[in-house]
Amino acid sequence: MTRFVLCAGSTETAEIDGISAAGADSAVMAHTPSADAEILTYGEPIRSPVVPVSPSGCPTPAALSRVVLASLDVDLTVVDAGLQRPTAAPTVTVGARPGEDIRESDPVSTAPGAFAAAREFGRALPDDEVFLAETIPGGTTTALGVLEALGEADAVGGVSSSLPDNPLERKREIVTAALASSSLSPGDAAGDPTVALRRVGDPVLATAAGIAAGAIETDTAVTLAGGTQLLAVAACLRHAGYETELPVATTTFVAEDPAVDLEDAADTLNLSISAMDPGFSDVHPAEAAYLAGEAKEGVGMGGALALADRLRLPRSEIRTEFRRIADRLTERTKPIAGDDR
Amino acid sequence: MTRFVLCAGSTETAEIDGISAAGADSAVMAHTPSADAEILTYGEPIRSPVVPVSPSGCPTPAALSRVVLASLDVDLTVVDAGLQRPTAAPTVTVGARPGEDIRESDPVSTAPGAFAAAREFGRALPDDEVFLAETIPGGTTTALGVLEALGEADAVGGVSSSLPDNPLERKREIVTAALASSSLSPGDAAGDPTVALRRVGDPVLATAAGIAAGAIETDTAVTLAGGTQLLAVAACLRHAGYETELPVATTTFVAEDPAVDLEDAADTLNLSISAMDPGFSDVHPAEAAYLAGEAKEGVGMGGALALADRLRLPRSEIRTEFRRIADRLTERTKPIAGDDR
Repeated sequence: MTRFVLCAGSTETAEIDGISAAGADSAVMAHTPSADAEILTYGEPIRSPVVPVSPSGCPTPAALSRVVLASLDVDLTVVDAGLQRPTAAPTVTVGARPGEDIRESDPVSTAPGAFAAAREFGRALPDDEVFLAETIPGGTTTALGVLEALGEADAVGGVSSSLPDNPLERKREIVTAALASSSLSPGDAAGDPTVALRRVGDPVLATAAGIAAGAIETDTAVTLAGGTQLLAVAACLRHAGYETELPVATTTFVAEDPAVDLEDAADTLNLSISAMDPGFSDVHPAEAAYLAGEAKEGVGMGGALALADRLRLPRSEIRTEFRRIADRLTERTKPIAGDDR
Repeated sequence: MTRFVLCAGSTETAEIDGISAAGADSAVMAHTPSADAEILTYGEPIRSPVVPVSPSGCPTPAALSRVVLASLDVDLTVVDAGLQRPTAAPTVTVGARPGEDIRESDPVSTAPGAFAAAREFGRALPDDEVFLAETIPGGTTTALGVLEALGEADAVGGVSSSLPDNPLERKREIVTAALASSSLSPGDAAGDPTVALRRVGDPVLATAAGIAAGAIETDTAVTLAGGTQLLAVAACLRHAGYETELPVATTTFVAEDPAVDLEDAADTLNLSISAMDPGFSDVHPAEAAYLAGEAKEGVGMGGALALADRLRLPRSEIRTEFRRIADRLTERTKPIAGDDR
């Protein structure tokens, strides 16, 4: 059996202007992981008062992952990896709390505890295989923080972005300030990923790394379903001494991002990386937004496409259903009046 | 689409000696709903340090419901309706807290809030149909409390039990004391189910009634999957003014319980009740325990059998797989050493 595990959480780092497009503005963005979890579980937002779309209206990659999971016999489990807002999706608790801005000195104090509880959860999973996915606005910046602290940022080249114009210089500045606030230099956390996760990371990375560690220890195959954030998880696992095979399934949008060097990352971290192409065209506005470089990846989009290929779910069916969900989501982009949870 | 919703929670009423067999002793019983949720989700306990079996070794009905849900394309959602212990099953939060002993004056102070949040959740569910199930040790006693407070206890005749010898007189004494501690006489809460749920009920009944109410309001078909506890939910819905069709799917073990009069309940509450027979035999000890009157129902066992019939999953396949899970569970009945969560 294959299980798709979504780690959904938050970091206040996302509130820094201009680093994420995972929501129309920062108030809406706080709801994005909760809404993503609902879309993956139910096909639409249930309790979340907002719909996760970018400022230009590009719908969340959860729409595509939902299409695949609803069509295949794959179990879904959402883990609360530090959600800021309520969700009606059922979630597993590992003690993660929302992360603070990584320029604070101890922004993810729950990282060690969440890693440990997530590891126990990963050890206990009865599945043959897990796909690990993430949703956390601002997550590429905290991923860069972790990669820098581990001394692996050069290997990856940089990190991807949900924005067409990746504000990579801005992210580097934030990470530099974050390392300084924790009195760390690049590479100082090498061999000690929990330090990197706690001081300059986020609760989603800590949770995902913990689940992966536990799964690996009990011979459950792990596929990292995502882009540069999952590369940061891979780096944590390597620095924790896990030497097993680690497939990464991401999208062609990440592979084509000039800010990222997947080949270098694959070599340095010993990963087999697949870049999956959803076959989008300019005909539909949601697909066109992805082709223009928005969103790119998230909520296990690349992993979902890899599962679809393995189980022979045709791309054309996926796209038809994706357009239907995307249309329904963009119709609902206005917050519910008076609801300010 | 059909969704199977398990409301999992607790009441300290279960700690009163001799009223429940949902666990080997009262320390173990506190874990039963958390473990049931895990068995339904994963096929085995994950985080729970105990396995829900009766003192004589009869495995939880979750084993049978798991078999059906794992075989069919039915979505599962577990709602935290006041769990006392951690669970690794993903759960939806509605603000329910564990219920106190109903002989306290305000044992379920979260009942009105949980009902309201559960109702919103039920309204938002995108499904055509939901099956509502429960797991809560001591739940038949609190169900009797609610039925008495609503003035419907005579209609049902009494309540069922997870014990072969139903301690009905003991339950009546407890309910009499519970009503007295809340200054209620039988029937005093007629037309006001929230009072009954809060003063002499439990958080699972409040949550299940809320979900049903919301689902009904949005034209989602509701099947009450359970025995006398779900009859108490039906009574709450009737007393809240919901007049829609309400099918109840339970087991033949409940139907054959002399303490219960399903026909009277069906007449009085205007219900269509189906009693499903798993076709157990004395050959396997787990099946023999059910035939001897243990457990009887719970975790939606009767509803799962009804779903299996509708989707043509043969009884023989269900029993084969049930025996396999039951064997695995009874092998694991000892608590994990040193784990005392």
